[in-house]
Amino acid sequence: MGYLRFKTGSSEGEARTGTLKLRHGTIRTPEFMPVATRAIVKALSSDDMAELGAQLMICNTYHLMLKPGAEVIERAGGLNIFMNWKKPLATDSGGFQAFSLGFGLEHATGKISLYFPGEHKGSRKPQKSIAKIDNNGVHFRSVYDNSKHFLTPEGSIKIQEQLGADMILVLDECTSPLSDKEYTSKSLDRTHLWAEKCLRAHDTDQALAGIIQGGHWQDLREKSAQFISSLPFDSIAIGGSLGRSKKEMHDILEWIHPYLPEDKPRHLLGIGVVEDIFEAVERGIDLFDCVTPTRMARTGYFYVRPPLGNKANKFKIKMVFERFKFDSKPLDPECNCKVCGNYSRAYISHLYNMNEIVGHYLLSYHNTHFFLNLMREIREAIDDSKFSRLKKRWGI
Amino acid sequence: MGYLRFKTGSSEGEARTGTLKLRHGTIRTPEFMPVATRAIVKALSSDDMAELGAQLMICNTYHLMLKPGAEVIERAGGLNIFMNWKKPLATDSGGFQAFSLGFGLEHATGKISLYFPGEHKGSRKPQKSIAKIDNNGVHFRSVYDNSKHFLTPEGSIKIQEQLGADMILVLDECTSPLSDKEYTSKSLDRTHLWAEKCLRAHDTDQALAGIIQGGHWQDLREKSAQFISSLPFDSIAIGGSLGRSKKEMHDILEWIHPYLPEDKPRHLLGIGVVEDIFEAVERGIDLFDCVTPTRMARTGYFYVRPPLGNKANKFKIKMVFERFKFDSKPLDPECNCKVCGNYSRAYISHLYNMNEIVGHYLLSYHNTHFFLNLMREIREAIDDSKFSRLKKRWGI
Repeated sequence: MGYLRFKTGSSEGEARTGTLKLRHGTIRTPEFMPVATRAIVKALSSDDMAELGAQLMICNTYHLMLKPGAEVIERAGGLNIFMNWKKPLATDSGGFQAFSLGFGLEHATGKISLYFPGEHKGSRKPQKSIAKIDNNGVHFRSVYDNSKHFLTPEGSIKIQEQLGADMILVLDECTSPLSDKEYTSKSLDRTHLWAEKCLRAHDTDQALAGIIQGGHWQDLREKSAQFISSLPFDSIAIGGSLGRSKKEMHDILEWIHPYLPEDKPRHLLGIGVVEDIFEAVERGIDLFDCVTPTRMARTGYFYVRPPLGNKANKFKIKMVFERFKFDSKPLDPECNCKVCGNYSRAYISHLYNMNEIVGHYLLSYHNTHFFLNLMREIREAIDDSKFSRLKKRWGI
Repeated sequence: MGYLRFKTGSSEGEARTGTLKLRHGTIRTPEFMPVATRAIVKALSSDDMAELGAQLMICNTYHLMLKPGAEVIERAGGLNIFMNWKKPLATDSGGFQAFSLGFGLEHATGKISLYFPGEHKGSRKPQKSIAKIDNNGVHFRSVYDNSKHFLTPEGSIKIQEQLGADMILVLDECTSPLSDKEYTSKSLDRTHLWAEKCLRAHDTDQALAGIIQGGHWQDLREKSAQFISSLPFDSIAIGGSLGRSKKEMHDILEWIHPYLPEDKPRHLLGIGVVEDIFEAVERGIDLFDCVTPTRMARTGYFYVRPPLGNKANKFKIKMVFERFKFDSKPLDPECNCKVCGNYSRAYISHLYNMNEIVGHYLLSYHNTHFFLNLMREIREAIDDSKFSRLKKRWGI
């Protein structure tokens, strides 16, 4: 299989730290991966990400295969060289976007619309599906030029090999939370078939992760956890609808937990809510990825730690010029990032109000620091057997 | 008068170096001031500007009095604290925007439309004037909310005192290159009247610069140079229409040169073309300001030194994805900025093509470095009596 060495470290209940060695270096888990959608985290350069101490980022195959095209990145020498990022990288399979351009849009579920590639258009309305899935793969149209594409399990692996990240993902079908059990079950069989196809197609030393699906049905999730864990994947990801409530997400993580191999890293796909991160770490998750830090920045929110941040405000505050124009305090007086060291709420709210690029930059930098710093604290807390105390201190 | 100490250093012909001491520090001239329009250089934070080695920036009073408002900046403790910029700052009077919103737009002259505050709308068409000038001041409407404002010479000084920059400018009328001699002459009397009013109104230790106007008429320019030089200004600026041809700009600078005091810095307002900078330094200019580096970045141009850059291509190249997508070279192989050290044309052209914020950032950073580095070379060349050789080496 691919190059990946994972060693668990301290633990507290199911929560655990780990050391994950990939081709471009070794990282400590649990960790949050910022999403470098188009080989760039929105508003933050690779220099910024290095300065922020990011250990691992994930790029979107759907976007990169269309723009600039896998060939451009392959000829550059792979994503690390293209982006000038010296630490590990992951790519997804392109499948999630196939989903969000298909069923996600048709059902117009809140969670999914977060990921709609055309998000800059601000659309949350259901749109006509531009993706069709059959057992061979996903037919979809490019959001850039409406051109037709067909993504197969083998094709996804091939493209991810061209992109050249350290860790890649199998093509799966991410069902909508509104799909019924019959559809989800049939879809799960396809996802499992594709997992095997991806394994057979995989031909490099990139680490390959399998994905557990199964919607919010216990038997389907257990079946999927058992099946994916039985295959020689380097890493295990948990995908799909993670429930329509917090409790459902907890249930899913608890159902699958007994089947997960201890010695493989576990990646909960697309999760970036503070409360969820605590709850998932408590249930044995090692890796997270989400666009929330920079997406929230673009919509004018900045994250705050306790005491300003709490479960009720979801640890974030809306940047409103009229509220902050005379406020000389940093975004979060408890934060030690360079933005909070250098700039006031008055200044940042003015920049944001004027839609200045630097306003987006400063909010994105602070928010990304918030998540990476939270993960550092979680790792330290587990090492010191103080994770449950940290969780309580955050009011979760 | 205000706090400003200027000492000339080396010289070569009329070209000269100088040491300019202002309240927030000492800078070396000739220097180019990046324009921090709304208390921010577009796409570049104060941290970036410090890293780039900028010595002095200029902010726009017109924009700041409207957004966030002078009171916000005054209560923050002034522009330096508001922006977290520790080195010297200048502000303009707001007059230029009164012009560009008035006659400039009516005449739709190319040069002026560069400065149209609504430039993001991409409009170069003549629009109905929303400014009226009389002897007391300028009546104008806000581009932000269409509210009515009246800017007087005394009011401009008062607002600039609230903003608190190290160096401020008198309110003047910047006539259009299409104004006739009769109008320009009448306008010049008003500009001189306002210069005296500003001197009387000025009541802080901020350095105050007078502005020479007079269009492209030798007698008017000489009259203005004589008049402004006779007043106790700390610094002399040259404004207005700098001619409809290179030759006309050279003529204007040569006409006024005999009247300029040796011991005051000379600021050529709004100039940012490489060739013009060389020609103006050769004619004794010490300070420049222009939005070109970041504006060109936004429109997708990157600056290049010789041999790639030359008079014909105006030392800039258009960023076209299809042309650069397989190009692993830096923007300019001759450049020593961090962007050229870290990122390829392929990557930057992809980011620019996708309208990613970081694409704008990288181009803005490189372009600003280009100008600041050019000025460093010009200073060194004058110190070494090699300015004319440098000018020749740049093909000018």
